[in-house]
Amino acid sequence: MTTGHTDPQRRERILAAALDHIADEGVAGVSHRKIATRAGVPLGSMTYHFSGKDELLREAFTRFADQIVTVFEKHLSRPATLEQARQAVTDLVHTLSEGPRRDLVLAQELYTLAARRPEYQELTQAWMRRSRQLLERHFDHDTARQLDALIEGLTLHRALDNGAPHSRALTAEAVRRITTA
Amino acid sequence: MTTGHTDPQRRERILAAALDHIADEGVAGVSHRKIATRAGVPLGSMTYHFSGKDELLREAFTRFADQIVTVFEKHLSRPATLEQARQAVTDLVHTLSEGPRRDLVLAQELYTLAARRPEYQELTQAWMRRSRQLLERHFDHDTARQLDALIEGLTLHRALDNGAPHSRALTAEAVRRITTA
Repeated sequence: MTTGHTDPQRRERILAAALDHIADEGVAGVSHRKIATRAGVPLGSMTYHFSGKDELLREAFTRFADQIVTVFEKHLSRPATLEQARQAVTDLVHTLSEGPRRDLVLAQELYTLAARRPEYQELTQAWMRRSRQLLERHFDHDTARQLDALIEGLTLHRALDNGAPHSRALTAEAVRRITTA
Repeated sequence: MTTGHTDPQRRERILAAALDHIADEGVAGVSHRKIATRAGVPLGSMTYHFSGKDELLREAFTRFADQIVTVFEKHLSRPATLEQARQAVTDLVHTLSEGPRRDLVLAQELYTLAARRPEYQELTQAWMRRSRQLLERHFDHDTARQLDALIEGLTLHRALDNGAPHSRALTAEAVRRITTA
């Protein structure tokens, strides 16, 4: 018989509720009580699954990073040639920058947390390591690092520029340049 | 005779206090009452200078963007040759990424706000316009736009990677590549 405590779906539901809450109201307002209510689980379930707010934030943002890394993976697993890899990176920038606003907010919330509290930089470091490893399937180590930063900047600037976001051609040209040694 | 209401320094003091508060605790907790206390001004002074929280946030973040644009300007006003301009941009990335953590947090707070509430994107758009105009002193329009995104990404990734931030040589190479048509 499955009890609430050992139900793995309950842990997942709590993490999903935590991310929804962070997307709506930010990291500042996160508490065991609020997330329990949002997830529809008893408060005791929170303390069973998470030692405290820090562990809850860590696990929730790790789950979020997993989702974005999956998007990277989908784009970067297919290309066979350099030209295809460049196109895939261009697609990736436009997929991310035109994606759900929720994802944009969550990424910025994580960066803000890591900027304010360096102990959370293990999360951003692990995330960067994983996206660079995927880029290294197609590009050398240093190029992957430069390209990872370019993807970040182009995605952020497109997403924050409702007025006149830059064209696909501009992204493609930037990717071509940064991957040309 | 100078009264509190017409004292221009009082407005500046309120904006500085608002930025300090945002750096410490985030946008979510900003209220007229808290900022008045922090600035050491009467509550009436807040409503005299600002119509509400939105105007206060807009003015505070505009003041912050002014400060960062000044850093851009200092680096980009001197170079005379392409090579000097590339070096200046490389310096700029390292100045920004090694700068006060407060500035990193404030930039991320602004991006988070603009991600969550698109009506604040006029602030990020205006900021991007100004930094691109400074880059256009040395680079063509499209290159300036690509370079602005690269500066953003490299600065953010360096600042959020306490473990092994990338070298100046890597920044210089990325800048060289993106400015080579």
